Amino acid sequence: MCIMELPQVETLAGMPERITIYEVGPRDGLQNEKTVVPTSVKAEFIRRLAACGLDTIETTSFVPPSWIPQLADAADLLGELGTEGTGARRPVLVPNERGLDNALEQGVGAIAIFGSATETFARKNLNRSVDESIAMFEPVVRRAQEAGLWVRAYVSMCFGDPWEGPVPIDQVVDVARRMMDLGCDQLSIGDTIGVATPGHVLVLLNSLADKGIGLDVIGVHFHDTYGQALANTVTALHEGVTVVDASTGGLGGCPYAKSATGNLATEDLVWTCKGLGIETGVDLDQLVRTSTWMAQQLGRPTPSRVVKALAG
Amino acid sequence: MCIMELPQVETLAGMPERITIYEVGPRDGLQNEKTVVPTSVKAEFIRRLAACGLDTIETTSFVPPSWIPQLADAADLLGELGTEGTGARRPVLVPNERGLDNALEQGVGAIAIFGSATETFARKNLNRSVDESIAMFEPVVRRAQEAGLWVRAYVSMCFGDPWEGPVPIDQVVDVARRMMDLGCDQLSIGDTIGVATPGHVLVLLNSLADKGIGLDVIGVHFHDTYGQALANTVTALHEGVTVVDASTGGLGGCPYAKSATGNLATEDLVWTCKGLGIETGVDLDQLVRTSTWMAQQLGRPTPSRVVKALAG
Repeated sequence: MCIMELPQVETLAGMPERITIYEVGPRDGLQNEKTVVPTSVKAEFIRRLAACGLDTIETTSFVPPSWIPQLADAADLLGELGTEGTGARRPVLVPNERGLDNALEQGVGAIAIFGSATETFARKNLNRSVDESIAMFEPVVRRAQEAGLWVRAYVSMCFGDPWEGPVPIDQVVDVARRMMDLGCDQLSIGDTIGVATPGHVLVLLNSLADKGIGLDVIGVHFHDTYGQALANTVTALHEGVTVVDASTGGLGGCPYAKSATGNLATEDLVWTCKGLGIETGVDLDQLVRTSTWMAQQLGRPTPSRVVKALAG
Repeated sequence: MCIMELPQVETLAGMPERITIYEVGPRDGLQNEKTVVPTSVKAEFIRRLAACGLDTIETTSFVPPSWIPQLADAADLLGELGTEGTGARRPVLVPNERGLDNALEQGVGAIAIFGSATETFARKNLNRSVDESIAMFEPVVRRAQEAGLWVRAYVSMCFGDPWEGPVPIDQVVDVARRMMDLGCDQLSIGDTIGVATPGHVLVLLNSLADKGIGLDVIGVHFHDTYGQALANTVTALHEGVTVVDASTGGLGGCPYAKSATGNLATEDLVWTCKGLGIETGVDLDQLVRTSTWMAQQLGRPTPSRVVKALAG
């Protein structure tokens, strides 16, 4: 494999010198695969990702197995990973107190909760209204904090919703504010169906700042459904965002939103960051090998263009 | 087909209110297809593109048929298009005086010449050194000007070259300056193998400005090999570039550069512009239908993500 890298330019004005990639492949990616990946392969995937230098990896989700059979082995996976699967940099998604109990039992050090900016998606994803879902999250976050866990709040459908159309920005900010008021440490704003463009991203970041949610606690989560994921991410970086969600090999999407295709591919993001002189700590060469290996396990090609270019 | 558009935001500070999309699908796109598309289908493609509101369309190329058999029907195509194939908004690529003679014979009002920033690619693409190719272009541009034609200069391999590696920026600027000194009206800077990131784009635009080549004469031409095309384009727009090369359905690449995959898809660019409130004059809905029709003619799916999302 030959990486034809350009000499990096100086970090552009306003861009961070270093970002944290919040790797969602093992959870957000694999939960959308048709085939159920064996637990041992998942564990190996996570170990390989960590060896590439990805220090924040969402490993799995304690949702009921009937919701997402692909992640039904969450406890087994964490057991197999041992200390590799715990700690503040290995968040686990939990939808409710039962999920939290399971996570605590496995000794995890960080969790993520997954809310929705829209009523329709809250009902489809959590079988609850927005108000009810936030009420459900309240004891989860409180108890997680009491146990010393780090907590991330996802807000999905922050720009458009396939059932409700464009989502009013005040509604997004209101849900984000309420999620953060529960005591969460980080907010991930998700364009679950990938419709936003750079201007929408700027407007939302500014609106969140107006409500006291600053760049220091915001991560961005873009999908490439309309090809906008990387352009939106670069825009957010230029504003000073330093946490970016990405999925190795572009795995993933959302099982309950028809038009939601893959996440931003971690490799494509790392390529950008290398060119811009933004440190990610990730070894791209090794990540491409990991991605190629995972694609073999899944029996299908990767949608990451960097992987196609370098390993094709 | 339902377009789930977000309300557009105001044009961002520094962004142009309107851009010109320089559509390269019929030339740059089709010359890279394995199958030779019938002349009548090409003509229909161009007519449909024009009906979508694309006012600048590069129609074909008068290169020797042995070089690019896909475009061997250039004269027939222009004959079939009639006045639709001529005029300043229907440039035709010509490599040399013989190509110019053919173009003049068909009554075209605009031509493009295609240079290289690197010696290796100049030899592979034109069978000449950089100096020799510029010498070859000199009478082409002079005679085109005398005939009142509008002339575009492409400079390819502006960032990386698959044989030579990273291309020194002074070398790129020097070739660009010499091409423009011939008397060309517009410069298209091409990342033929898609390796650049937004910082590299900014550095090149600034370096060109230092040599008197301003934003008013620059078009940008990005390939999506490493997923960077749209992010790079948005960066250029933010600098004030108002001409963007794109290929409907993401058709194309470069027949002589192995790692050069598709151009930026016109639909993905239009989606961004619509979201940002940048006028393109293009009817996206109609363009997606055109792209879908063309993919059917080619018997393969389109790589444009917007087309996949809207027509999938």
